Amino acid sequence: MPEQQTYNVAIVGATGAVGQKIKKILEDKEFPINELKLLSSARSAGKEETFRGETIIVEEAAAESFEGVDIALFSAGGSISKKLAPEAVKRGAVVVDNTSAFRMDKDVPLVVPEVNPEDIAEHQGIIANPNCSTIQMVAALKPIKDAYGINKIIVSTYQAVSGAGNAAVEELYEQSRDYLEGKEINAEILPVKGDKKHFPIAFNALPQIDVFEDNGFTFEEMKMINETKKIMHDEALNVAATCVRLPFATSHAESVYIELDREGLAVKDIWKTLEAADGVILQDNPQAQEYPTPQSAQDKEEVFVGRVRKDLDNPKGFHLWVVSDNLLKGAAWNTVQIAQVLTERGWLKK
Amino acid sequence: MPEQQTYNVAIVGATGAVGQKIKKILEDKEFPINELKLLSSARSAGKEETFRGETIIVEEAAAESFEGVDIALFSAGGSISKKLAPEAVKRGAVVVDNTSAFRMDKDVPLVVPEVNPEDIAEHQGIIANPNCSTIQMVAALKPIKDAYGINKIIVSTYQAVSGAGNAAVEELYEQSRDYLEGKEINAEILPVKGDKKHFPIAFNALPQIDVFEDNGFTFEEMKMINETKKIMHDEALNVAATCVRLPFATSHAESVYIELDREGLAVKDIWKTLEAADGVILQDNPQAQEYPTPQSAQDKEEVFVGRVRKDLDNPKGFHLWVVSDNLLKGAAWNTVQIAQVLTERGWLKK
Repeated sequence: MPEQQTYNVAIVGATGAVGQKIKKILEDKEFPINELKLLSSARSAGKEETFRGETIIVEEAAAESFEGVDIALFSAGGSISKKLAPEAVKRGAVVVDNTSAFRMDKDVPLVVPEVNPEDIAEHQGIIANPNCSTIQMVAALKPIKDAYGINKIIVSTYQAVSGAGNAAVEELYEQSRDYLEGKEINAEILPVKGDKKHFPIAFNALPQIDVFEDNGFTFEEMKMINETKKIMHDEALNVAATCVRLPFATSHAESVYIELDREGLAVKDIWKTLEAADGVILQDNPQAQEYPTPQSAQDKEEVFVGRVRKDLDNPKGFHLWVVSDNLLKGAAWNTVQIAQVLTERGWLKK
Repeated sequence: MPEQQTYNVAIVGATGAVGQKIKKILEDKEFPINELKLLSSARSAGKEETFRGETIIVEEAAAESFEGVDIALFSAGGSISKKLAPEAVKRGAVVVDNTSAFRMDKDVPLVVPEVNPEDIAEHQGIIANPNCSTIQMVAALKPIKDAYGINKIIVSTYQAVSGAGNAAVEELYEQSRDYLEGKEINAEILPVKGDKKHFPIAFNALPQIDVFEDNGFTFEEMKMINETKKIMHDEALNVAATCVRLPFATSHAESVYIELDREGLAVKDIWKTLEAADGVILQDNPQAQEYPTPQSAQDKEEVFVGRVRKDLDNPKGFHLWVVSDNLLKGAAWNTVQIAQVLTERGWLKK
C-alpha cells in the first residue's frame, strides 16, 4: 500500500468556537495532516494547544504564516479573511473560508459537500463555507428539490447564541444566572456586538441577527436568501427568511415552508427522499413524539428533519422542522468536509 | 348621575396564572363589580386572596357556585369548562371561557374585541376566548385584511412557557438552574403534561405544543388554523402554523408571512394601517434597532408589531413579527375585554 499523501494545514481563528471544533474534527476524522499550524490574533498567540497528543503553540496570523501551507481553514471573522486569505492563496494554499467575506464572489465556489461538491473543482484558490443557517437548510432541501422541484422557500429560524461566538454564550449564561437570582441584567454583545443597542438574550428572543439592510431584512436573512440560490444554482428560486436569536447555546432550528413544482405528493414521499439523503437523518414520528430539538442535535454531524407535514391548503406545499449543530455541520464539519473533497478528488491544485 | 350598574362576577381557576391576571385586571380597570367569587379546585379552596383591599376566600367550584352570578370567567382547563360552564349558564350567568372546550362550537362566538365584537351579541350563554397565539395574530392581521385583503397566512411561533401554566414556568427555572450548575436536568411537564415523553425546555426549543393530530399538526397548530378562520369569518382563508415552545416565561412571538389580495402595496401602507389599529402598537424602525421582543411586550396589554418587510419575490407578500403578553392580551385581558363589551353594550341577556 502506497504511503498516504499528507498536507500542511493551517487553522486561522484556532482558539475560537469554530476553530476549536475544526481542530477536534481533523483529529477525530484522521485527516491526513503533515503539519498543523494554529493561527490567531495577537491576543491569543502563545497559547498551548494539543493535537494528536502533541503540543502546538498558537501563532499570530500573518501573511508569512502561510508559507508551505497546503490548506488554510479560516474562521476568524470577515476582515481577517479579506486581509489574509489572498495572502494564503498567493503562497500556494487553498483557502476554505468560513466567513461571509467571499461567499457571493462570482469566482468563489460556495459549497455544501452533500449538495454541490462539484463546484469545488472550479475554485481559484478560495472556497467559501456557507452561513450556518443556510447549510442545514440546503442540506435538507436539495434532495427534495432534485426529486420534485422546489420553487418557493419561506423559513423562520430559531438560532443558537454560539453563532455569535464564545463570548455571546458566556453572556447568555451570565444573564441567565443574574435573572434567576433577581439581579439586574447586563447586555453588551447581542444581538450584534458592533451595533448601537444591546438587549438581553436570556429568557428572551431577538428578531435581529447581524445588521439591518436597507430593505428591512437583516444581513443574516439576506445571506440565507442569496446563498441558497447560489448553492442551488437557481436564481429564480423564491426564498424568504426571518432570523431570530434564542436563548440556547447550540444548534439552529428552522421552521421551513416549501412549495414543490408538483402536486400529488404525500408526506411519505418526502420521508423516503430524506431517508435516502446523504448527511440527513429523518426523525419524524409525531405519535411517538419523535422530532429533533437543538439539544438532541448537539454534537452530531448530521442535519435532522422532523415535523414533515403537507400544507392543508396548497397541494404543492409542505412544512418541515430542520435542526443541526451550528458549530459542526453549520461550520467546522462542513469546512473539513470541503477540505476532504479537495484532497480526495485531487482538486487542491488550480 | 345615575348609579352605575354593577355585576356579580366569578373567576373559575382563580389561583392559576391566568385567573390571577384576570383578578388584577378587574381591579385595575375598575370593572363594575358588586360581588367577586373566586373559584378553584378542591386543592386550592380555602386560600385567601385580596381584591380591592378586601379578603376573599377561594371556594371550590361547583354547579351551585353560580347562583346569582352574572358573568363567569372560566380559566381552569377544558374539562372543568365542559362540566361547569353549562351549569353556570343554566343559573343565568354568561360565561366567558378561556379554554378550547367550546371554541369551535357553532353556537359559541369566538371573539377578539378589536376584531369581531359584534359576534358577542349572538351568544347563547357562552362566549369563547381564542387561543393565546391566535388572538395576537388576528389582532395584528385583521386591520390589514380589512384594508387590503389577505388570502394566505403562514406562521411560525415562538411561544412562552407560561402558556403551559405556572408549574411549567417553575420547571423552566429549575431546569435552568440545574443546567447552569452542571446538574442533571429533570423534565416532567413540557412539552405536554399528559403526553408520554417529556423533554427539557431550558436552553432548548420544543416543536410540540399540545398533542399531535392525525394529520401531523399539533392541536395548538390546528387551533391557530381553525380559530383564525372562524374569527375572521373566512373559511376560504389559507392558514398554516408551526408552533414551538421556547425557554422564556412570558409573551409569544410570531413570524408571520401573509399574502395580500392586492399588489402594489409598500411597507409604509402596512405601517399606516397598523398605526391606526385598535390595540396594536407598531414598533418598527430597523435602523434604530426598534422591534418588539418577548421581554419588551411583557406586562403590556397591546399587540406589538415590528419587522414589517415586503417579500422580495411575491409582490403580494409581506412578513411581520408579532409579539404580545400571552397571559394578558392572549388570555386575561381579552377575557375581561369581552366582559366589558357584554356589559357596556347591554348584551348580557340572551
